[in-house]
Amino acid sequence: MLDLSLYLVTDRGLTQGRSLTDIVGHAIKGGVTCVQLREKNCSTREFIAQGKALRTILHTTAVPLIINDRVDIALVVGAQGVHLGQKDMSILDARNLAPHLIIGVSVENVDQALKAQAQGADYIGISPVFLTPTKTDTAQALGLAGITAIRQAVTLPMVGIGGIDAHNAAQVVQAGCDGIAVVSALMAAHNPFQAAQELKNIVHLAKEKS
Amino acid sequence: MLDLSLYLVTDRGLTQGRSLTDIVGHAIKGGVTCVQLREKNCSTREFIAQGKALRTILHTTAVPLIINDRVDIALVVGAQGVHLGQKDMSILDARNLAPHLIIGVSVENVDQALKAQAQGADYIGISPVFLTPTKTDTAQALGLAGITAIRQAVTLPMVGIGGIDAHNAAQVVQAGCDGIAVVSALMAAHNPFQAAQELKNIVHLAKEKS
Repeated sequence: MLDLSLYLVTDRGLTQGRSLTDIVGHAIKGGVTCVQLREKNCSTREFIAQGKALRTILHTTAVPLIINDRVDIALVVGAQGVHLGQKDMSILDARNLAPHLIIGVSVENVDQALKAQAQGADYIGISPVFLTPTKTDTAQALGLAGITAIRQAVTLPMVGIGGIDAHNAAQVVQAGCDGIAVVSALMAAHNPFQAAQELKNIVHLAKEKS
Repeated sequence: MLDLSLYLVTDRGLTQGRSLTDIVGHAIKGGVTCVQLREKNCSTREFIAQGKALRTILHTTAVPLIINDRVDIALVVGAQGVHLGQKDMSILDARNLAPHLIIGVSVENVDQALKAQAQGADYIGISPVFLTPTKTDTAQALGLAGITAIRQAVTLPMVGIGGIDAHNAAQVVQAGCDGIAVVSALMAAHNPFQAAQELKNIVHLAKEKS
């Protein structure tokens, strides 16, 4: 069973010179339940090398590795899943290529969520929940009402992403998300272990209440 | 049997507003024997759409479609092969993922050619044969002597790429290449059909002589 409680999306631009695998390793010990490797500006060979490095770290844990966009890289590194954006491969094509992979899909509204569910996605990442200063190319923020609207439309497991941190994580879960996905709240954290612990506790408490 | 005589590598930046599929279609009628779809700055979904469009054109011909870099896209569009650069997936990984695909590899020197042969590449693309004004990030030009050195080192089918046009194509074949790969000589040609016919004739004549 996929645990989306605390979903880490990597961003090597935020590591401030630290090793990506170190940050992920500490964050997992702190409670991260799912890791997505996202690389946008590197060669295939480098992407694979990063994927294999994370796979090694995750190998002895129950935490699945999800690869952003690239089904071929997910297969080569032995990841458990692939995460597809609206401009990536279709769910159907990905499922045909790799029937055993977890397939996650990014959605920005109810229509995309319904389509993802109809096409057999395993979970959805809904974004942007809140506006973030670093990501200006995304759609209007969903807000808590947007989360609830998507929650009422689909039964798929769903994780919110975009501007989520310790201050608003509980609201995101109470509005209907099964967990939170974060980038900077863990990648840029001074202490990723502690930051993960704190976020995990907030999500767990919010789940108990809802 | 793979015919590398006239190998077209696409570049949408050179189409001057014309449709990529139209240019490729005319070039095939003129004698292109192999088509590689190369996309560097588009989404996976758009890359797949281009690949499927070319697959439709090539479907009724004996001309294979080769996808640059992306094994997953090659599989989704039903291409016959994948072309790997030195920073792309390894030959071994690609072969494991897709045993039936033709695997081509870009090499810039004898060592890389020997390695590609040892790892089971189906053909190599050697580059840059000549310097091109538009590509400044590549290694020193191999020249005709460089072609011959690689020809003497490996038995793999090989195609030269980089600055090849009607004026120097014959020399490239006589130096040891099984064919020529071109980008701008066809993609930017005013009449791709005629340009392909001319190049094909030059390669055939040169092959008869060598």
